[in-house]
Amino acid sequence: MARIAIDAMGGDLAPREIVLGAIAALEHDAEVVLVGDPAPIRAVLSDVGVDAPVVPATELIAMGEDPAAAIREKKDASVSVAARLVAAGEADGMVSAGSTGAALAAAVFGIGRIPGVSRPGIATILPIERPTVVLDAGANLAVKPEHLAQFAVMGAVMASIYLGYEDPAVGLLNIGSEAGKGRDLEKEAFALLEAAPIRFVGNVEGNDLGTPVADVLVTDGFTGNVLLKTVEATARGVGRMALEALTGDGDPSTSAAVETVMPRIAELQARLDPEAYGGAHLLGARGTVVICHGSSTRVAVANAVTLAAEGAARGMVATIEEQLARG
Amino acid sequence: MARIAIDAMGGDLAPREIVLGAIAALEHDAEVVLVGDPAPIRAVLSDVGVDAPVVPATELIAMGEDPAAAIREKKDASVSVAARLVAAGEADGMVSAGSTGAALAAAVFGIGRIPGVSRPGIATILPIERPTVVLDAGANLAVKPEHLAQFAVMGAVMASIYLGYEDPAVGLLNIGSEAGKGRDLEKEAFALLEAAPIRFVGNVEGNDLGTPVADVLVTDGFTGNVLLKTVEATARGVGRMALEALTGDGDPSTSAAVETVMPRIAELQARLDPEAYGGAHLLGARGTVVICHGSSTRVAVANAVTLAAEGAARGMVATIEEQLARG
Repeated sequence: MARIAIDAMGGDLAPREIVLGAIAALEHDAEVVLVGDPAPIRAVLSDVGVDAPVVPATELIAMGEDPAAAIREKKDASVSVAARLVAAGEADGMVSAGSTGAALAAAVFGIGRIPGVSRPGIATILPIERPTVVLDAGANLAVKPEHLAQFAVMGAVMASIYLGYEDPAVGLLNIGSEAGKGRDLEKEAFALLEAAPIRFVGNVEGNDLGTPVADVLVTDGFTGNVLLKTVEATARGVGRMALEALTGDGDPSTSAAVETVMPRIAELQARLDPEAYGGAHLLGARGTVVICHGSSTRVAVANAVTLAAEGAARGMVATIEEQLARG
Repeated sequence: MARIAIDAMGGDLAPREIVLGAIAALEHDAEVVLVGDPAPIRAVLSDVGVDAPVVPATELIAMGEDPAAAIREKKDASVSVAARLVAAGEADGMVSAGSTGAALAAAVFGIGRIPGVSRPGIATILPIERPTVVLDAGANLAVKPEHLAQFAVMGAVMASIYLGYEDPAVGLLNIGSEAGKGRDLEKEAFALLEAAPIRFVGNVEGNDLGTPVADVLVTDGFTGNVLLKTVEATARGVGRMALEALTGDGDPSTSAAVETVMPRIAELQARLDPEAYGGAHLLGARGTVVICHGSSTRVAVANAVTLAAEGAARGMVATIEEQLARG
């Protein structure tokens, strides 16, 4: 059973929701270690009458701080202590809902990178019709062609381990499907992707999302971040419009029908909920690292811990290392 | 009544669907001039028993051609002849479903740019909960900060003319809402946008889409293109998932209810249909230019002609010119 170190101090709702999320994850094949200020963490544990190991950390990194500087100066920050537990083999992975930049810096400095990876990337699974891995979702606003090639190899491993896609189709996010489209970045990355040990399907567009055209989308962190948030906003907006279309006029002749179908709409909403996966992988660190939205509730945290535990149990990092060595 | 020149030869379904779209637009306060090879155009007109003026053009520009070179070499291309009609005041605007690059080049070389505009941008109205103007949607893959400031002024005029938003909120698409976020492009554009004659609301994110946070989103053409196609794909995907959730199991106890609510879902789908607006404005040309998807059917073309006629009738280009002169 994988053992996950949790940065209990990171996130808008820390430590309470983080600790409650960790406890909930205990039911899903994960062991947890809570990292942070012991007193408030133990207070939550005692509230719910559950025990879990706590590793003290005296500092925490706030959302506005410069991540690299903060990681350098605050040696005892909860996110750094969690990373060191992973590096020392005392945990199989870590989860943080704190500053993404701090988690990235803690992973790079505290755990290190997989050989062959210049820049770790944030990989998210989009819970759409045919779930798709998208990276980078925001770790690197500007990338080089070789970074996209590394993302491609890592994303393919993630799609096969988490989504069960055999030999997943990897696409380069672009503004047209023909070869030669895009900025210099895409034009130069194309050749590298063709040579990478993946099934590269060429340029793909935003409107291929959720179709079998591509199982993995690689792009720079700016575009990936916009894409993910756009999917979220659109899914939520269309959901609200559908609800309004169904219930808006309160026509009694249809309200019984609306009531009958509503549970199915609710089920769909749950499936599209961005908290369903809970977090995103920081791929490229030499250890399992899952980061969550700052606003994560216990539901998201529990799912993120489960995600990390699965990745660790299935040896995702080792598989990525093997695949990159082939390239 | 505005008179719109239509490139009858551009688009996958040209000239038939283009001509039929133009005819359909006659019912919506538009006059049309069909530009292209007279024989096939007149054949469609005679099929449906409608007459409309035809201006001959002996050449056409295919989708794969280099736009700037093609515009230079093919002086009598249908898209260029349409642009010259606008420049000469013989038409109040133009519509093309052919190569976007060719329409852009025809507009810049044939009609010219509004003073103060370095690069025209493609502005699209997203038919989401609260419709939003997004630009650039793909004319310029890489832009400079001053281009974003020009897009902002033009987009605000478009939002106020088409969507009736008074003093529309203009946002800079970014990966976080705090000032100082983003690439160098966004950081440098921020100050220019603050100084522009618009109501600048700062950085906005993909998940603000369709909310009152921003009525106009400015970004580079690569990101804008990805965003638009992502919205389309997500809306379509969620729609399909909703249909499947409702009808998938064929449970007879709910099928009557599903049948009752289905017309409302269909109405919503029609509202979200990307063909509903039919086309996008090429803002920055010194004339009304609307471009359509290459795959446009008569429905999209008719809506695009109506869009162009409305823009021309409401003096959008002149208003943009005035606003830019203020900045």
